[in-house]
Amino acid sequence: MDTWHEECGVFGIYGSEEAAHLTYLGLYALQHRGQESTGIVSSTGDGLHLEVGMGLVADVFTEERLKRLPGHLAIGHNRYSTSGSSLLKNAQPFVVDYAEGSLALAHNGNLVNAVEIRRALERQGSIFRSTTDSEVIVHLIARSQAPTLTGRVIEALSQVKGAYSLLLMSRDQLIGVRDPHGFRPLVLGQHNGALILASETCALDLIGATYLRDVAPGEMVVLDRNGIESLFPFASSRHAYCIFEFIYFARPDSYIYGKNVYPIRKALGRQLAREAPVEADVVIPVPDSGVPAALGYAEESQIPFELGLIRNHYVHRTFIEPQKAIRHFGVRVKLNASRECIQGRRVIIVDDSIVRGTTAQKIVAMVRNAGAREIHMRISSPPITHPCFYGIDTPHQEDLLAATHTLEESRAFLQVDSLAYLSLEGLKKTVCPESDTRYCVACFTGDYPAEFPHLHSPQLALFGKE
Amino acid sequence: MDTWHEECGVFGIYGSEEAAHLTYLGLYALQHRGQESTGIVSSTGDGLHLEVGMGLVADVFTEERLKRLPGHLAIGHNRYSTSGSSLLKNAQPFVVDYAEGSLALAHNGNLVNAVEIRRALERQGSIFRSTTDSEVIVHLIARSQAPTLTGRVIEALSQVKGAYSLLLMSRDQLIGVRDPHGFRPLVLGQHNGALILASETCALDLIGATYLRDVAPGEMVVLDRNGIESLFPFASSRHAYCIFEFIYFARPDSYIYGKNVYPIRKALGRQLAREAPVEADVVIPVPDSGVPAALGYAEESQIPFELGLIRNHYVHRTFIEPQKAIRHFGVRVKLNASRECIQGRRVIIVDDSIVRGTTAQKIVAMVRNAGAREIHMRISSPPITHPCFYGIDTPHQEDLLAATHTLEESRAFLQVDSLAYLSLEGLKKTVCPESDTRYCVACFTGDYPAEFPHLHSPQLALFGKE
Amino acid sequence: MDTWHEECGVFGIYGSEEAAHLTYLGLYALQHRGQESTGIVSSTGDGLHLEVGMGLVADVFTEERLKRLPGHLAIGHNRYSTSGSSLLKNAQPFVVDYAEGSLALAHNGNLVNAVEIRRALERQGSIFRSTTDSEVIVHLIARSQAPTLTGRVIEALSQVKGAYSLLLMSRDQLIGVRDPHGFRPLVLGQHNGALILASETCALDLIGATYLRDVAPGEMVVLDRNGIESLFPFASSRHAYCIFEFIYFARPDSYIYGKNVYPIRKALGRQLAREAPVEADVVIPVPDSGVPAALGYAEESQIPFELGLIRNHYVHRTFIEPQKAIRHFGVRVKLNASRECIQGRRVIIVDDSIVRGTTAQKIVAMVRNAGAREIHMRISSPPITHPCFYGIDTPHQEDLLAATHTLEESRAFLQVDSLAYLSLEGLKKTVCPESDTRYCVACFTGDYPAEFPHLHSPQLALFGKE
Amino acid sequence: MDTWHEECGVFGIYGSEEAAHLTYLGLYALQHRGQESTGIVSSTGDGLHLEVGMGLVADVFTEERLKRLPGHLAIGHNRYSTSGSSLLKNAQPFVVDYAEGSLALAHNGNLVNAVEIRRALERQGSIFRSTTDSEVIVHLIARSQAPTLTGRVIEALSQVKGAYSLLLMSRDQLIGVRDPHGFRPLVLGQHNGALILASETCALDLIGATYLRDVAPGEMVVLDRNGIESLFPFASSRHAYCIFEFIYFARPDSYIYGKNVYPIRKALGRQLAREAPVEADVVIPVPDSGVPAALGYAEESQIPFELGLIRNHYVHRTFIEPQKAIRHFGVRVKLNASRECIQGRRVIIVDDSIVRGTTAQKIVAMVRNAGAREIHMRISSPPITHPCFYGIDTPHQEDLLAATHTLEESRAFLQVDSLAYLSLEGLKKTVCPESDTRYCVACFTGDYPAEFPHLHSPQLALFGKE
Repeated sequence: MDTWHEECGVFGIYGSEEAAHLTYLGLYALQHRGQESTGIVSSTGDGLHLEVGMGLVADVFTEERLKRLPGHLAIGHNRYSTSGSSLLKNAQPFVVDYAEGSLALAHNGNLVNAVEIRRALERQGSIFRSTTDSEVIVHLIARSQAPTLTGRVIEALSQVKGAYSLLLMSRDQLIGVRDPHGFRPLVLGQHNGALILASETCALDLIGATYLRDVAPGEMVVLDRNGIESLFPFASSRHAYCIFEFIYFARPDSYIYGKNVYPIRKALGRQLAREAPVEADVVIPVPDSGVPAALGYAEESQIPFELGLIRNHYVHRTFIEPQKAIRHFGVRVKLNASRECIQGRRVIIVDDSIVRGTTAQKIVAMVRNAGAREIHMRISSPPITHPCFYGIDTPHQEDLLAATHTLEESRAFLQVDSLAYLSLEGLKKTVCPESDTRYCVACFTGDYPAEFPHLHSPQLALFGKE
Repeated sequence: MDTWHEECGVFGIYGSEEAAHLTYLGLYALQHRGQESTGIVSSTGDGLHLEVGMGLVADVFTEERLKRLPGHLAIGHNRYSTSGSSLLKNAQPFVVDYAEGSLALAHNGNLVNAVEIRRALERQGSIFRSTTDSEVIVHLIARSQAPTLTGRVIEALSQVKGAYSLLLMSRDQLIGVRDPHGFRPLVLGQHNGALILASETCALDLIGATYLRDVAPGEMVVLDRNGIESLFPFASSRHAYCIFEFIYFARPDSYIYGKNVYPIRKALGRQLAREAPVEADVVIPVPDSGVPAALGYAEESQIPFELGLIRNHYVHRTFIEPQKAIRHFGVRVKLNASRECIQGRRVIIVDDSIVRGTTAQKIVAMVRNAGAREIHMRISSPPITHPCFYGIDTPHQEDLLAATHTLEESRAFLQVDSLAYLSLEGLKKTVCPESDTRYCVACFTGDYPAEFPHLHSPQLALFGKE
Repeated sequence: MDTWHEECGVFGIYGSEEAAHLTYLGLYALQHRGQESTGIVSSTGDGLHLEVGMGLVADVFTEERLKRLPGHLAIGHNRYSTSGSSLLKNAQPFVVDYAEGSLALAHNGNLVNAVEIRRALERQGSIFRSTTDSEVIVHLIARSQAPTLTGRVIEALSQVKGAYSLLLMSRDQLIGVRDPHGFRPLVLGQHNGALILASETCALDLIGATYLRDVAPGEMVVLDRNGIESLFPFASSRHAYCIFEFIYFARPDSYIYGKNVYPIRKALGRQLAREAPVEADVVIPVPDSGVPAALGYAEESQIPFELGLIRNHYVHRTFIEPQKAIRHFGVRVKLNASRECIQGRRVIIVDDSIVRGTTAQKIVAMVRNAGAREIHMRISSPPITHPCFYGIDTPHQEDLLAATHTLEESRAFLQVDSLAYLSLEGLKKTVCPESDTRYCVACFTGDYPAEFPHLHSPQLALFGKE
Repeated sequence: MDTWHEECGVFGIYGSEEAAHLTYLGLYALQHRGQESTGIVSSTGDGLHLEVGMGLVADVFTEERLKRLPGHLAIGHNRYSTSGSSLLKNAQPFVVDYAEGSLALAHNGNLVNAVEIRRALERQGSIFRSTTDSEVIVHLIARSQAPTLTGRVIEALSQVKGAYSLLLMSRDQLIGVRDPHGFRPLVLGQHNGALILASETCALDLIGATYLRDVAPGEMVVLDRNGIESLFPFASSRHAYCIFEFIYFARPDSYIYGKNVYPIRKALGRQLAREAPVEADVVIPVPDSGVPAALGYAEESQIPFELGLIRNHYVHRTFIEPQKAIRHFGVRVKLNASRECIQGRRVIIVDDSIVRGTTAQKIVAMVRNAGAREIHMRISSPPITHPCFYGIDTPHQEDLLAATHTLEESRAFLQVDSLAYLSLEGLKKTVCPESDTRYCVACFTGDYPAEFPHLHSPQLALFGKE
């Protein structure tokens, strides 16, 4: 898929003498969840230490910087990359001083009433130094009069709505909270006596930690010298796990909501083959995210699978485009078509999703140029017709291909011989054959689980402007 | 002198299409007032743009970064360098969003009741992201209910005590304020129709601007499309201009409080020669800050002046000290004694001030090694016996040589044949022959013009710890 | 496979006003052939311009550096990465001045008599500034008395033996030469009237250029204002195309020696399945290089293919290893096993080759930990028993697993239930079903096509020491 | 003075376990002799290690880079900065391999027959990788058939003419040579049993080393485990010490040719006052190089000395000039006039020399703007009428003010009321009252001590073009 970005990955650890280094490793494993900025806060028990920077985990953190992060307690954060608000001031973790000491916060998700709260806070004289909704939470905690950090966090989060898998850290406590809907994942693990919170299990695997369980929707876990305390302080809500983690976001080796991602992606491809078969000579994935679904499609359809689009493994964000010699350079720097697999053949291209459709259009043109006789596009998720307000950086609705084009118009736009998406039913029954209704599928239906004040002026845009 | 640092330099401009570039030049001219970090905020009228970094002006600002600072309105700030709290989060200008929009602040000085206010604000739920006292002002402005920015600034500053030469900037206004005591300098200038505020006139000279006048103690100037508005909203106080600007801080070509610095420094040397004459063969300055006083001393005493200590012009902050071969490397990387001027002679070393005395001790040893027969140390300011709480980074009182040693003990510590300081009377009558009493001389007397709550736990230390 | 590195990638272009920018793109596409250093030389007709640096193409070249490379003629080079001699002085292109002007050289390959020539040249007073064999060629050209550059190059290359796909550039000529054995690939392309030489066709594809043909073994092509001149100045030799390009080195979308790489890799997997079948539940590739062969193996054996090892796409060369918490961190930072695909199953792991065997051993352990019931390792190339002296950075023979272990010993070392390699016959007939004997298979047989003076003191080692 | 640059500073040490670190310190002290690039080569006895980079010593060398320079033997080099050929390939020390091993070279000076030798070498097939004349020496050494390094160096240097203070280093020997004319300085020192060679004594002072003696003109000193061997292998020549070291180049605390620089500079000012007196109110130096002469002039003339031009100590080479607001920004970024010292006065400006005159012209305009009633320019050296071919980067003759203007024309160009230079006689008798004729004064007279083949196509220009 093309230009869809998750907001972030979080990692926290309590009780290891290498807390910051293990957090660094955890963030490294979660790099796919955010490439814009990264940061770690550690605590020695008498003070917080912060290192934060723009760029990839392995570029930002040097041995010298890791040494400046002592202590047995740490949290870290990877932030996604977009062009506009890609600024250091928005990098997390946030660290602030308030009446009760220092506090660090790392947030994955998006609050739907952040604008209202921010305005109310500003009217009361609060100042803001970032354009992120996460800063609102810190203000609410600081303003709470509750006697304990736990109490203050509960009081603060009772006022916000939306998606949050949140790590909070004081000098001696690590708190993890998942919103009552459970939009974004958060898992609990263990490693040599230390306790770990992370966005995905692949972060546990890298450091050899054991997966204990998911933090439950609406649960708050408090990790400190007394071990794990588990609280459910919020009114329970309809569960609404982001189903897109299975389609695209999560790393295929992770377990999300207790399920391994890769087999589900493959099963989506299989289901897609059953729903939208077509006579063809070869199944080709858009690498790398489309590969599992394409494998499933090929298996089910008995049509040969080929790596007909080869990816350049050294793709770099600051690529300098040529000025004159080559127009519409586009997708070529990332992918190249393997003419041998394609020429004269009827090709099924399998991808996981379509957002704007512009990248898909360029890929189709590339495959066409390589001599495909027919091109059939198959997408292992339903048409995305609505933006996400729970932590995914989607474009405005008017920029979503499926929101503004009928299926036939989309087919024509992409210039393919046929186009088919997976059905919502197919998606649901593949992800949760137990006919569960716990998933958020709002991006396909517009049925948003958490109401928010002003649908037509979504807060992302408000905060995005500076 | 050795380890005395001023807190910062500020520069602001309203009404130039090259506002950020001229601010860059102004900060360049004010580099001597702070080398730790530097930053510029500009405004296009519909949003503020910030670039900030650790290091020197010419290293932090590239052409690319200056281009990211469009607009006709800008303020900038150079921050001093100390080891401990040398962190990007403390770099200025600060930029925040609050109920009425965006606000930028650049502060030279130090508030004496910042701890009290900060604690009160924290009790009300405010959060802080730096360890500087300047952040307090921003909170107070944001909490004010006054209808205009001017009103809010007045309400905020009415609550703080201490030293501030302050620049504030909204999207379309530039405000300069000097505290009622007038501790730190602030001048007003003009250039091609643009209005300028700066810490020293040398910044005006570099860009070819005309000096209009000093901002008066307790004055607030508001620069916007209507020109200059001048307000005196605060109760008037005893004036207390920092006299150390004349002794050490200001660049010798600047006019401070309307007087040119270099001739005053020379006159201090002359007065010192009258007060503390000694038979000798040669007068040698500690370069560069001791040169004008030494010239004055030599002229008055008719003893030949020689550049007997040569300075390395490429002194660099990240110098790598040798491990074994050379012990007590000390001051040698900066200075070298010119044996020819010194050997077999009776030498008068002239410096502007002594803080800890450790550097002076090393210089004396160097001159002794070069063969001086006698060494007489003459200091063109009185003994520093008290720390400054108004914006100068002095050590604790127990580290001030003159606070813990008698004159004879100091002489013995420095290992000189004689030691003499300029008298306070001599200093005052040289700086202000009109027998003015407008100057702060608290570092020599302990007579602090602005009371502050807890003398024995000065706020600098409180904020300095993290 | 593990630690096998190709020496480099080359790209040259004659006749484009964006010569350096297109070379940058070409090198970008050839990044997989060398990640240590990269460089470009361009010519405006009256002088050569060089930019060279350590690291990846997209990191070394900024817009500013590309602007410093004007002209219609350019060559570029990517160099491989090893720990020892990873020095800027060895980065290419080399640029030198000699009697007839300036000369730039970019070399892919390795000369087997470089030591002898270098010693002879040194005895005649030549000086060397690198430890590469390529510098020898430049000396020989400079010492030639032939009247034209072409003549000098022919005279020089007549004295060297071994592997070279070579680009040479004067102010107005671009020369490409492939050694008479044709060890390394070199292709000729065309783009908007400009002529191009490149190591692989994927570089042509990226810039939208047309593939014209391979430069033939022993051919020299001279590109200048007169177009293409083709010469065959050397005695013809037995052809010896490196067969490893098909097994591992080349990008799968490239055409090497006129054949598309990806289908051959897949056919190798198919052939392997026929030669070494085993009952199992799942075929798992070592990504990414083992994927095509695994696809072929799965297709032929009708055993399901699964991406059971997931690769982290952000693997970075300066990863900071943890100190205490995790021992034998090894391969985990790159790969993670997908337990769901593996647990309780009989697994066939397919990789393209085994060099030292240490990485394979770690992968096996990882798969074992994920719960595999049986592990069968299948390698889509024969056992590597001999080092390469023609431009591939192989370890010494004593470090090659298959050179020092029988098949059974290797199986025990890797701790797999069974181990099988593709047969040499199977390899040859798959790559060249026309029963061609044009390939170099010395790494499998020790039958080296080009004799070299001292087999037991190979020149790589001599140059590697400094 | 304005745009006159010395070619470089050299430093070498034999017999210290911190050889590279002490070389770093020595180069730091010699930074004024070259700011373009810097480098160090060290030897552990079995191999040379090189670190080289563009920029200042303290910027190029980090602790990590110094650690990569082990051994008891090292040489280092600072290279001057000009715009054109400011390239890494020209940075020194050079390190090459040749028949007898590895060799490093650091050269201060300029050969007058380098072009001829280079062309001859090229005709014999030599290749060159830099545009410096120093590379010629390395080739000649490599081509020598003499049995020892000493013999090869003698044979090589017997063929070159011109200026060289040269350090050469093999794995176990350090050789210093000063050309028979003795154009450039070179001193021998001692530190804790280690032997040192350096361009100036200030480098010895910084590391606490003892000055032993100057290397004599035509002397070669060989430092190795046998101590110091002193050879005089060349035909003796008329001595021709560069007199400009006393006027401008050397640091004032150094001893050059056995004499301390600072007192001589002051004496030049005194002599100038005797030769060219004028009625005036104040003597003002152009800082920093004009200060000693101005002190001397003031003392002799009994006219008060004032620091009327204040220097910005943070002048930086990559200063970004304003685009529109300020035209002719020129010298202001470096200097500011102190109006108080100047206004209404008759001013004598003292500088050490005038090259192009453009900087002097801007300084005069600045002083005029500050209100000077009269301006009298006094220069403590004779008019420079001829370029230097012995290691100083002077402009072409047509760009030298005094070569193309009469005294009166120069006065008019500078827009001063009077202009006077020191007489050549005055210069000579001040520098060498013993009426010595050992100095090179060719830049004032055109009487070049070492003939060179083609005066009108000086080699500097030939090498400078690429």
